[in-house]
Amino acid sequence: MKSDISKYIKRCFELAKKGKGHVSPNPLVGAILVKNGKVIGKGYHKKYGSAHAEVNAINNSTEKVAGSTLYCNLEPCCHANKQTPPCVPLIIEKKISKVVISNFDPNKEVNRKGVKQLREAGVEVITDVLENEGKDLNKFYFKYVKDKLPYITLKIAQSIDGKISLARNKQTWLTGKESKKFVHKLRSEYDAVLVGAGTIRTDNPLLTVRNVKGRNPIRIIIDGKLNIPLKSKILNSNDPESTWIITSRNVDEKKIKVLSKKGLRVFKIATKRQTKLELKKIMKVLAKQKITSILVEGGRNIFSQFLKEDMFDEVIILQAPKVLGSGIGISNIKKIKNLKLLSVKKLGDDTKLIYGKNLSD
Amino acid sequence: MKSDISKYIKRCFELAKKGKGHVSPNPLVGAILVKNGKVIGKGYHKKYGSAHAEVNAINNSTEKVAGSTLYCNLEPCCHANKQTPPCVPLIIEKKISKVVISNFDPNKEVNRKGVKQLREAGVEVITDVLENEGKDLNKFYFKYVKDKLPYITLKIAQSIDGKISLARNKQTWLTGKESKKFVHKLRSEYDAVLVGAGTIRTDNPLLTVRNVKGRNPIRIIIDGKLNIPLKSKILNSNDPESTWIITSRNVDEKKIKVLSKKGLRVFKIATKRQTKLELKKIMKVLAKQKITSILVEGGRNIFSQFLKEDMFDEVIILQAPKVLGSGIGISNIKKIKNLKLLSVKKLGDDTKLIYGKNLSD
Repeated sequence: MKSDISKYIKRCFELAKKGKGHVSPNPLVGAILVKNGKVIGKGYHKKYGSAHAEVNAINNSTEKVAGSTLYCNLEPCCHANKQTPPCVPLIIEKKISKVVISNFDPNKEVNRKGVKQLREAGVEVITDVLENEGKDLNKFYFKYVKDKLPYITLKIAQSIDGKISLARNKQTWLTGKESKKFVHKLRSEYDAVLVGAGTIRTDNPLLTVRNVKGRNPIRIIIDGKLNIPLKSKILNSNDPESTWIITSRNVDEKKIKVLSKKGLRVFKIATKRQTKLELKKIMKVLAKQKITSILVEGGRNIFSQFLKEDMFDEVIILQAPKVLGSGIGISNIKKIKNLKLLSVKKLGDDTKLIYGKNLSD
Repeated sequence: MKSDISKYIKRCFELAKKGKGHVSPNPLVGAILVKNGKVIGKGYHKKYGSAHAEVNAINNSTEKVAGSTLYCNLEPCCHANKQTPPCVPLIIEKKISKVVISNFDPNKEVNRKGVKQLREAGVEVITDVLENEGKDLNKFYFKYVKDKLPYITLKIAQSIDGKISLARNKQTWLTGKESKKFVHKLRSEYDAVLVGAGTIRTDNPLLTVRNVKGRNPIRIIIDGKLNIPLKSKILNSNDPESTWIITSRNVDEKKIKVLSKKGLRVFKIATKRQTKLELKKIMKVLAKQKITSILVEGGRNIFSQFLKEDMFDEVIILQAPKVLGSGIGISNIKKIKNLKLLSVKKLGDDTKLIYGKNLSD
């Protein structure tokens, strides 16, 4: 019985994942209805603004849902001040007799209230099934709701000896095709990718999704002095409204006008010093724009600043099987930053190492 | 039947491994005698100069060996100009009817001759069973016999960003206790460990085996100018004859006398330039001393030289979950060195990455 519960919750996770890249700032949610040991309905949250997973499972069901058990990775919602009607009253109305969830919704308007309402209506509720896996699946959502900041991942492609390029301002391709594909997959799942102005000057990237199917992320460039070349590919894309420039308040207004005319969005951030932008301020501005997750792609100065200001949740190292010796390292921080190894595996000829924060620091 | 053959050869590998650290310059060999589906005898080569695995298996057998099958990871020997009598005549004399091996012996005096003699005497011989695993088990022996050079492994403990210490001449402990234990295990298996004079000055190591059971390796120091401090722990060990100093011919003879008086061995190598030692010359000298395997433990200049001169067979990276930013990198080579990832796994909080040569270079 217990393993059946885990099995159905795992299927909810799999369903939920289908929404990756499309539901933000909402969570990824999958739902399954089971009656007499048989799955009678399933659904997932497909797109921000569209029906919730529970509603889709109920609507797709092949039998009457009364008396069935609803499996869902997240606590059903009970608040009305949003785009779609709440799920809890529907579950009660449809006489679903039991609800099994992985995580309570961290959103204060729902947190434990959804479960409470269900129980008060006589619905049996089981909670915290595979709760760590559930939290990991919705790591963007949990971070965003709890800290009101995006989940930040530093993605660093490097040599064995921690070099990201052969020399300053020299584009160096280190990793193989499997790593490239993996990066494009990440881009299709994160709300935004972020680079510094130096990366635009050196690599002239598009930062779009090309090697896998998926939607393009918002492209964010931190450029305190606003001096990236106007001919850069990223400033001349088909969807200029998806390229956002973060700059300082004291920058030349004429420059901003040129960029705005191209259709790009420019955000001006207050700075203490001349043009040094504080990451936390930037992240708060981006969170207000409903950016729940950011993939930081470089370069060295950007990585250093995120590490130094402790503004990251995850570091993904794609390590190519090369020793560069001389070259540009991943950071110029002065103090040791301790991380925690979460996972490591081969990725083609490269190695994918995933680190999280070291909370004992 | 086929899987039975593999199973018995695997057991030979396991038996052979018991000799690790004790049989050099001989190969690791294990042997099993099977009669009517039952193991009737097993043995392994325990120590250089002592009986071969085949002889031990025959001597340990619980039944008459006539008509049995001998499993052995290496081709039985047929040459007499050595410490122990050859195995092939014994196998024939004992009327063993079948021999199954993993590898032909690369030693020219035996290579394919042992198998030929057995077949000529009417013994059925099956060869090349799990031959890659067999070669990997005896990688030291194959390298030493084929190239007349030791098998060289660079062992590098580093941060994520490829730093081995915080600053020049500053000892920095990066990796955890599991990595330390692993290094001591390696030391107990390699014939010798090797470091540069800088590592002696900075870390003042003993380079002995302490965290695991096992014998101490020969400790080799490359010190072209012969200026390591005479108080260094490594120059004052209980077994000074196991500490070898490699220096240049043009060094002060008085310095050599002081070291020789302590019981240490000093090797003088001819140099083209003032004191720059060529690694290949050093390795040839060490191979003549029957050193078949060397674990190179640092520091940066030594790693750089081995990489530059292409004098390595394997690179083991023990990567600690830290970003150092500033600090001393693993090498100062100027040209990219491509390697090949062989394996990667977690080791405590660290990551163990094993690289081999990239032969497509």
